[in-house]
Amino acid sequence: MPDYKAPVRDIQFVINEVLESEKLYQTLPGLEEATEDLMSAIVEEGARFAESVIAPLNRSGDEEGCTWSEDGVATPAGFKEAYRQYVDNGWPALSADSHYGGQGMPSLLGIVMNEIAGTANWSWVMYPGLSHGAVNTVEAHGDEDQKQKYLTKLISGEWTGTMCLTESQCGSDLGLLRTKAEPQADGSYAITGTKIFISAGEHDMTENIVHIVLARLPDAPEGTKGISLFIVPKFNVNEDGTVGERNAVHCASIEEKMGIHGNATCVLNFDGARGFLIGPPNRGLNAMFTFMNTARIGTATQGLAHAELSFQGALAYAKERLAMRSLTGPKNPDGPADPIIVHPDVRRMLLTQKAFAEGSRAFLYYLAQQGDIVANGNEEQAKAADDLMALLTPIGKAFVTEVGFESANLGLQVFGGHGFIREWGMEQIVRDARIAMLYEGTTGIQALDLVGRKVLGSGGKLLLGFTSVVDEFCAANSGAEYEEFIKPLQAYSKEWLDLSMKLGEAAMENPDNAGAGAVDYLMYSGYVTLAYFWARMAILAQQKIAAADGDVSFYEAKLMTARFYFDRLLPRTESLKTTMLAGADSLMAMPEALFQL
Amino acid sequence: MPDYKAPVRDIQFVINEVLESEKLYQTLPGLEEATEDLMSAIVEEGARFAESVIAPLNRSGDEEGCTWSEDGVATPAGFKEAYRQYVDNGWPALSADSHYGGQGMPSLLGIVMNEIAGTANWSWVMYPGLSHGAVNTVEAHGDEDQKQKYLTKLISGEWTGTMCLTESQCGSDLGLLRTKAEPQADGSYAITGTKIFISAGEHDMTENIVHIVLARLPDAPEGTKGISLFIVPKFNVNEDGTVGERNAVHCASIEEKMGIHGNATCVLNFDGARGFLIGPPNRGLNAMFTFMNTARIGTATQGLAHAELSFQGALAYAKERLAMRSLTGPKNPDGPADPIIVHPDVRRMLLTQKAFAEGSRAFLYYLAQQGDIVANGNEEQAKAADDLMALLTPIGKAFVTEVGFESANLGLQVFGGHGFIREWGMEQIVRDARIAMLYEGTTGIQALDLVGRKVLGSGGKLLLGFTSVVDEFCAANSGAEYEEFIKPLQAYSKEWLDLSMKLGEAAMENPDNAGAGAVDYLMYSGYVTLAYFWARMAILAQQKIAAADGDVSFYEAKLMTARFYFDRLLPRTESLKTTMLAGADSLMAMPEALFQL
Repeated sequence: MPDYKAPVRDIQFVINEVLESEKLYQTLPGLEEATEDLMSAIVEEGARFAESVIAPLNRSGDEEGCTWSEDGVATPAGFKEAYRQYVDNGWPALSADSHYGGQGMPSLLGIVMNEIAGTANWSWVMYPGLSHGAVNTVEAHGDEDQKQKYLTKLISGEWTGTMCLTESQCGSDLGLLRTKAEPQADGSYAITGTKIFISAGEHDMTENIVHIVLARLPDAPEGTKGISLFIVPKFNVNEDGTVGERNAVHCASIEEKMGIHGNATCVLNFDGARGFLIGPPNRGLNAMFTFMNTARIGTATQGLAHAELSFQGALAYAKERLAMRSLTGPKNPDGPADPIIVHPDVRRMLLTQKAFAEGSRAFLYYLAQQGDIVANGNEEQAKAADDLMALLTPIGKAFVTEVGFESANLGLQVFGGHGFIREWGMEQIVRDARIAMLYEGTTGIQALDLVGRKVLGSGGKLLLGFTSVVDEFCAANSGAEYEEFIKPLQAYSKEWLDLSMKLGEAAMENPDNAGAGAVDYLMYSGYVTLAYFWARMAILAQQKIAAADGDVSFYEAKLMTARFYFDRLLPRTESLKTTMLAGADSLMAMPEALFQL
Repeated sequence: MPDYKAPVRDIQFVINEVLESEKLYQTLPGLEEATEDLMSAIVEEGARFAESVIAPLNRSGDEEGCTWSEDGVATPAGFKEAYRQYVDNGWPALSADSHYGGQGMPSLLGIVMNEIAGTANWSWVMYPGLSHGAVNTVEAHGDEDQKQKYLTKLISGEWTGTMCLTESQCGSDLGLLRTKAEPQADGSYAITGTKIFISAGEHDMTENIVHIVLARLPDAPEGTKGISLFIVPKFNVNEDGTVGERNAVHCASIEEKMGIHGNATCVLNFDGARGFLIGPPNRGLNAMFTFMNTARIGTATQGLAHAELSFQGALAYAKERLAMRSLTGPKNPDGPADPIIVHPDVRRMLLTQKAFAEGSRAFLYYLAQQGDIVANGNEEQAKAADDLMALLTPIGKAFVTEVGFESANLGLQVFGGHGFIREWGMEQIVRDARIAMLYEGTTGIQALDLVGRKVLGSGGKLLLGFTSVVDEFCAANSGAEYEEFIKPLQAYSKEWLDLSMKLGEAAMENPDNAGAGAVDYLMYSGYVTLAYFWARMAILAQQKIAAADGDVSFYEAKLMTARFYFDRLLPRTESLKTTMLAGADSLMAMPEALFQL
């Protein structure tokens, strides 16, 4: 496993220089304390913690995995102790509501810490990470009593939380779910059903676990309009907030998986477990949509994390491993061969990883910052930011996890045959990264959300909201020295709108045309979105270099990576724009009966 | 793990209808017995064996893996017994030289059986599969005594063979290898060194293993021109052919790997082991090149195998799994939701797998058939076929394994979250498939071979050899009814030459431009090559449909898959043609020192 070194300089570059966060947070009531100095210090402290405490457990956690017994789930050696330190240092509370014990830092910092800790050890970070869904649910929809009872403990990290959605017969299609909630005389509900794929659903890290469970009331309508949300604690909570008797929710088994072995993926049986309605009845899915974006940005971070970690491993190897001579003559004439970083194809792989990791970092931090504007800005600001998030979140989730998986594979490939061997740790990154395109909505589901609900569903308005951000940026940087980035970006901004209109027209003729082009449309959108962030970073770097401001070599590397992105990765749009408009005919022509072996 | 059902109909379609093998083999001395009836019968028998004996060991072999002890390596339960049946049924001898006990069938059938058995269980098929390298080496370069002693036993399958190339400091760059061969008084050599990544290097299936070892004589020149080949048996062989005393070659350990757990990847220590020179001294690499193509076609088959197996699993799931309604209205109105095969994006994934598997099958069988022409045709035929193989083998190896891995991942994706869970077997296919882009020359190495040695190295002649085959096919099918395939194919044939010339010019300016574009050039070449085979299959299908000849539904499915390929996969060339010519600047500009964390 590569020794993880948190890219502190790059993280600070995005927070402070690209996104000018201090300036923004000075204008957002409640976030004024988030100064550049404070945020930088938090990042450095988080990096130290992740590198020294969590990263060393990454490979051992994969090897050991979790262990199920009737008494519960044991996490891999060291996980529990690391979590204790994490709580003692106050990390769970970092970006949480200060009324309930949170430190009230921007949610941007929460995503940053998710990246840093998650790159160190994704299996580990999922234990505290899954709490966010529960925190958001109780924060947005709980009553004061529920907040005092559950939210404070979730925020402090004394307890963790889960989201219990999936059942064996339904994942993407939650309308099919069957778990029942029967009203009890005391106002509670008896929850009965089986949930699967519950990440961190059972573990030995905390004395209690707060499950947020989707279930149906007896009189609920069928489909997605009959789903309600319930709080179901593992241990019932006494009135004084202490942990009481065991609730009737048990982990029946944990899954054997391709990766993230250190995280317990649980089958949870609810056998008339005591639950409490949260939010209005039958409006559970709507309630969840209010924070779906946040959860998806968190999952998107996994793509970034695995691109970064795989890049770090591949870069170190490419500088050390000797094989063959450079095509332009020996670069290491005294050695038996040149380090493989001299070979253009090895650089292609490294730069692809680097461009995806750094571009995704800017993209996802920007998205997280929009979340802060939604939460703390005035109405007009919040509306605009919410619209941007609505459009960009499915792109971020699907695109970043797809290119993250590609990057993880490229890192393995740089190692040649050694990449396939476990001890190097590169194959674990690929196995761990693979889940990200599946959970929290597959790539296909994100693409349907983007095309159907967001772009066409808004009549193009949400897309126009973002392309006008892009266009304003282009207009503000119209100097000849920035032309190499601005000119193509302007063209893409226009083309993106054109293609969206064409896809919309095709969808009017036949809705399957939208489904047929959705993933390619999403990937196209991802490449263009990343081009915007790369252009922003490149121009900033050019300005810093021109002003000889700071560590010029950092900015030079940034500028060259931007050029690589525009030169070698952005042209992937050319094929995507053909295939997204190819229509559904070649997909749907074959009768199902002809699909046979 | 999907229940494997060998695609017998499709295999016979390619052998008999697309490649018209009987007609060809009637003209090749020594292969006249390979009639359509006989070949079809062999395929059916092979399918039965693979489905019933080998396939059931695929998942258990992955779970159990191999076990090392000082006494050797134990293969997973059932592997040994299956191998015994395989030998008893005469499969190892299928396409081997009849002078040494082989059945003298075309090597095409060897590749077909490699596909069938390998799709059933790739880890298992590598045990007999690795013998081919040893068989080819002894057949081509051994003296009569060596042939009698080793070749007969390898061909019968009584013993297996290995190829011992890699050492820890060298994989792609064999010039760095250090294993030594000291001449002994009796004419043998004492072999000393450590080899790694030796697939099937030690196991419990046969009483002896014949290692072909690359090593250096004491006076050998440095680099690749000082490598010789040696036969090093695990047990010395007595003059009467029986197994004698243990030789000084031992398996020090086996690797923990991402996949192919059922196959032992060995570290082999040679401690003055008794070896015998095979072929001329210092010409070992040249000797190996004579059959490198065959070995690479075998490895390419893995891409096809895993695309096929993943497709079979995904197809069955897509027909059963219910989620959401079709965008064009319910297709399963009486059920709670529609089967997911109604969704265009699910079909996109399934058809991508299907198009890659079936297209690769035609491509690789064609390549194997060229091998038969090289071996059994007259001088002129052999030269032309050898040229085609030289060009197409690196494309086949790299392209088919790349799209095979993509297909394996798409199959997992069709399963949603269930794809990540081991019990379904879809994630094993991804893990197993990942090695194929690494061993037998990585994708990057194949690309350099294609661009440097084959296309530019022949001044374009090898490429012209294949594009004229394509052009002749287009000219012979110029009817309007075939235009949808022929018109684009003609344009691609021309464009491929144009792009090659441009890449050649760029390489003259700076050799790094060739390295920078090599992988994209190779992938472009792969898409165009597959387009040729899809056009051949599509037109044949059109003719059969028009003539109402045979099972029309089979031909309709074939034709529709061809349309999908041209519509949705072939346009990937558009981006590749831009990026292959983007040059090395954006890759090489960054000084190595700026590549830092």
